[in-house]
Amino acid sequence: MTQPLSMYQAFVPGVSNTLQALSQVLAKGAAHCEARKIDPSAFLQSRLFPDMFPLVKQVQIACDMAKGGVARLAGFDNPKFDDNETTFAELQVRIERTLAFIRSVSPEQIDGSEGKVITLTLPSRTLEFTGQQYLTTFVIPNVYFHATTAYNLLRQGGVEVGKRDFLGG
Amino acid sequence: MTQPLSMYQAFVPGVSNTLQALSQVLAKGAAHCEARKIDPSAFLQSRLFPDMFPLVKQVQIACDMAKGGVARLAGFDNPKFDDNETTFAELQVRIERTLAFIRSVSPEQIDGSEGKVITLTLPSRTLEFTGQQYLTTFVIPNVYFHATTAYNLLRQGGVEVGKRDFLGG
Repeated sequence: MTQPLSMYQAFVPGVSNTLQALSQVLAKGAAHCEARKIDPSAFLQSRLFPDMFPLVKQVQIACDMAKGGVARLAGFDNPKFDDNETTFAELQVRIERTLAFIRSVSPEQIDGSEGKVITLTLPSRTLEFTGQQYLTTFVIPNVYFHATTAYNLLRQGGVEVGKRDFLGG
Repeated sequence: MTQPLSMYQAFVPGVSNTLQALSQVLAKGAAHCEARKIDPSAFLQSRLFPDMFPLVKQVQIACDMAKGGVARLAGFDNPKFDDNETTFAELQVRIERTLAFIRSVSPEQIDGSEGKVITLTLPSRTLEFTGQQYLTTFVIPNVYFHATTAYNLLRQGGVEVGKRDFLGG
């Protein structure tokens, strides 16, 4: 008998899977740079358009959206990670730290947060959500947006990965 | 009192919101082509890398992932949409048709599908999921992957949109 979907189940397995897959995609990016004599730090600064964030920032935000989602829904302190990665390997470490944080939270600590009031103060505006709205219309879209954009930057840079690498498994 | 999260609530509001936002982003793409005298059909064929799908296909797949997800979880016939769009307006119609299909399904028709066996036969392999796995590790990642890639193509082509347009609201 399958359990009913919960906030934890709707969030953690899919997002963890995607971050793990992104780490493997980054490993292929590192190998590509090695083989083609490309400076990895130049690749990490690549952008799809001049006013978009570079690759390094896409990975950082994908991680931070997942981390912040878990912290806010569970009512935990949101650990601050420095944005100082300059190599693919360092970005993989950031993903690993993010996954370790996600794994430190039990289902019971997130489940039942559907109606919890979540207030986000952004530079330009304040957003107020229920926990359910926050998860389904902010956290999940943002994690996938930034993970996909990171993947697209690697893809555009010639790294040989496909959709199956993005999905993982 | 907020209801517990359900398969419907984890899927439909977020994905519908994203498809609606994508339609608005496409409208801005159409206006951009008009203002800059760009042939819209050329823009719809743009790609981030030669072996990636073009913009038109990214939008088609984003719609089809949402449509197929609803159909399979609800046990409905999956309506076939022809892949024949050549303008931004036609892609907006496809999104509208997809949203109409999604709205035709009631929560009761999707809820409780967590344990339903979903088998997908792809050209290269067969995937078997529970309904919950299918939703959280296949449908949702795929909808966001293709919606983000469509957005990224418009962004790279100079359309003035931002993250807020992607998220909608």
